[in-house]
Amino acid sequence: MLILVGLGLYIDLLPLRSLAALARCDKVLIDAYTSAPREAVERVYEVLRAMGKRVSLAKREDLEGESIARIAEEARHSDVCIAVLGDPLIATTHSAICTEAASRGVKVVVIPAPSIHCASITATGLMSYRFGRSVTLVTPKNGVFYEYPYDVIKENLSLNLHTLLLLEMDAEKGFFMDPCEAGRLLMELEKRRGEGVLRSDTLVVVLSRVASPRH
Amino acid sequence: MLILVGLGLYIDLLPLRSLAALARCDKVLIDAYTSAPREAVERVYEVLRAMGKRVSLAKREDLEGESIARIAEEARHSDVCIAVLGDPLIATTHSAICTEAASRGVKVVVIPAPSIHCASITATGLMSYRFGRSVTLVTPKNGVFYEYPYDVIKENLSLNLHTLLLLEMDAEKGFFMDPCEAGRLLMELEKRRGEGVLRSDTLVVVLSRVASPRH
Repeated sequence: MLILVGLGLYIDLLPLRSLAALARCDKVLIDAYTSAPREAVERVYEVLRAMGKRVSLAKREDLEGESIARIAEEARHSDVCIAVLGDPLIATTHSAICTEAASRGVKVVVIPAPSIHCASITATGLMSYRFGRSVTLVTPKNGVFYEYPYDVIKENLSLNLHTLLLLEMDAEKGFFMDPCEAGRLLMELEKRRGEGVLRSDTLVVVLSRVASPRH
Repeated sequence: MLILVGLGLYIDLLPLRSLAALARCDKVLIDAYTSAPREAVERVYEVLRAMGKRVSLAKREDLEGESIARIAEEARHSDVCIAVLGDPLIATTHSAICTEAASRGVKVVVIPAPSIHCASITATGLMSYRFGRSVTLVTPKNGVFYEYPYDVIKENLSLNLHTLLLLEMDAEKGFFMDPCEAGRLLMELEKRRGEGVLRSDTLVVVLSRVASPRH
């Protein structure tokens, strides 16, 4: 069986069903590259090691590409957990493994958990019904500005909807875009496009460490 | 302190932080009217009673209107938990109590939990980035058809986005719209509006008992 286990946003938001699945399975691969905070991943790793579990911190190459078929095959003979911070499938990051396993007749189980997607909407106090599509803001690559977030914010504003704007991160490289950098990037996009989407009176709510015990 | 506690979608999806808050507080009001499944609410109630907790199943009148000021005042002198299935604030149902407590200088803490909003997107295997605004389908009241969901689906389709369509429920009256009824209602809306938004080849994914252990 292949079990995609949501860990929630902090170690103490771990759902009981996730804990039970991790305790019962034969092997755990912890996704250590798609999510922050890093310390939550390490806490889970230490707890599972202390329980005598076969557990490893998985890099991108361990869960993508050629690794997919190997994991799907392994899940045929034993219970393999892929543990992911937040909700394990909200951005469909690991859907390729699920599809591969299912196509081989291997049972796939997904355990949902608190996700940044909902927790950040909740933290604003705004209604989820008033959010349009969400989008991730990324830094320019090789001098190329990624203008898509500007289009999404423009589209949502024209419909009188809020935008959940996620900020780029790369846990393997230790890169996490901070809100100031995001602000500068948005201003630069406005300067380039000049369509008046982001004005000096545009209301922005900045969230950080959402759902942290100290949030 | 006022603590809004997310219970998650099923009893075994309860996050550890929620469990700890319920165990520590002086009083628990379980929201027994905004969410399904009913059995999860009753299981939480029984567990807390067995722990010797002051716990009650709250009706709408116990958490809205005149009750809000009383709860906010009580939270000044003791730790009061309002426990809600799913995520406690995703539809901002209890934001009035939070606002009231905060305006009186009472500390408010929110504990997020798995929500139907994210769990249903996850269950479809579709990308959260491709969802537009969500909307709830409600039955006609006094012969008046509520056409807003049709407009939202139309708007999302025109942007090539999916729509998360929630179905009306009233836990106090034991009413839960089933998918067949929803389908008939959507066909009736199409017949009335005739804008070709809902066609015989429109793809619909029907989800039920999302995140259930047997889902």
